[in-house]
Amino acid sequence: MSEFKTICHTITADLKTGPDIRDITPELRGFVKSNGVVNGVIHLFIIGSTGSLTTIEYEPGVVADLKRAITALAPPDQEYAHEQAWHDGNGHSHVQAALLGPCLSVPVRDGALATGTWQQVVVINHDNGPRTRKIALTFTGM
Amino acid sequence: MSEFKTICHTITADLKTGPDIRDITPELRGFVKSNGVVNGVIHLFIIGSTGSLTTIEYEPGVVADLKRAITALAPPDQEYAHEQAWHDGNGHSHVQAALLGPCLSVPVRDGALATGTWQQVVVINHDNGPRTRKIALTFTGM
Amino acid sequence: MSEFKTICHTITADLKTGPDIRDITPELRGFVKSNGVVNGVIHLFIIGSTGSLTTIEYEPGVVADLKRAITALAPPDQEYAHEQAWHDGNGHSHVQAALLGPCLSVPVRDGALATGTWQQVVVINHDNGPRTRKIALTFTGM
Repeated sequence: MSEFKTICHTITADLKTGPDIRDITPELRGFVKSNGVVNGVIHLFIIGSTGSLTTIEYEPGVVADLKRAITALAPPDQEYAHEQAWHDGNGHSHVQAALLGPCLSVPVRDGALATGTWQQVVVINHDNGPRTRKIALTFTGM
Repeated sequence: MSEFKTICHTITADLKTGPDIRDITPELRGFVKSNGVVNGVIHLFIIGSTGSLTTIEYEPGVVADLKRAITALAPPDQEYAHEQAWHDGNGHSHVQAALLGPCLSVPVRDGALATGTWQQVVVINHDNGPRTRKIALTFTGM
Repeated sequence: MSEFKTICHTITADLKTGPDIRDITPELRGFVKSNGVVNGVIHLFIIGSTGSLTTIEYEPGVVADLKRAITALAPPDQEYAHEQAWHDGNGHSHVQAALLGPCLSVPVRDGALATGTWQQVVVINHDNGPRTRKIALTFTGM
């Protein structure tokens, strides 16, 4: 019989200038398989304050639509107080990422991700340049 | 003394055309009671990419206000790239659901949900038709 | 060797009229240290339906920018159906909090928070008056 465990892991994902959106479901499936976990939850947390995580149907149309909506939440061509101190041009990135949120918890059932057929786990880079994003994975369960 | 455990469960909720919002707090209370869990966290994850989860004071006014705000985030009468490929009329549903997010984690304390008195756990259907939503519940704790 | 455990704790944070944003990373660090936890996840849940949690780079510019974006999501000077029943002037607070969400899960690695260097955990008060916010913390791991 399986025993309760915590498994810690980190994945990285290369993303382009934000908003850029990448499917990390294959990496999660690989994590489930290589660790032989059966039932529980994978907690994901993106390290850094200009990235976020969510789920979408990962097809080019939804990706384009979501990018537009994210941009509308905090357009890069507005003025940001963050710029007045830092002048790094990514005030909008911070706001977008804070509104979407840095974490996600995905269930595992019978040794597989319990996501929908057309539901992929995605990482979003909101920053104003390409970034290699680090995502901390923590499995709790059996 | 209680032992550490993972309990997996699925609840379903019938919802109308989105945005529709339904209180699932009674189902969560039933889960806590029937499983005799005492302290820990219930992780909720909605299966499918046009649904989401959050908490609100579940009264008709807030429900109406939140529906309006959700619609403003991604109005159905805009054009969506998702439509060009799929023509299923729910491009806005995908964007709304991605922005709100598919998961929620609710604490359990002394055998009860540790939510506020006027804070209910709700599932939201964003799709352009009625849907029976499946929500995966995973308890970790004692 | 460490054993699997669940640790429950509550922190409180005094906040001004919303949107007000406060860094609670020091409290989380204190929790990690005083409990000697090493690897796992801290689940945070704000009790009440007019507060939320996220992460930001906690500097005055980002704080100001995020306040503006939150206000734009649900401005206090719009009409809200919640007001017609309750007349407590915080219809916008409920909508803002529901969109941002009440929970957050932060990883712990090697006895420290695995957040970014410029990424702080913040609690947000959306209500139309000062509030002492209660946040339920649940650690699961070792």
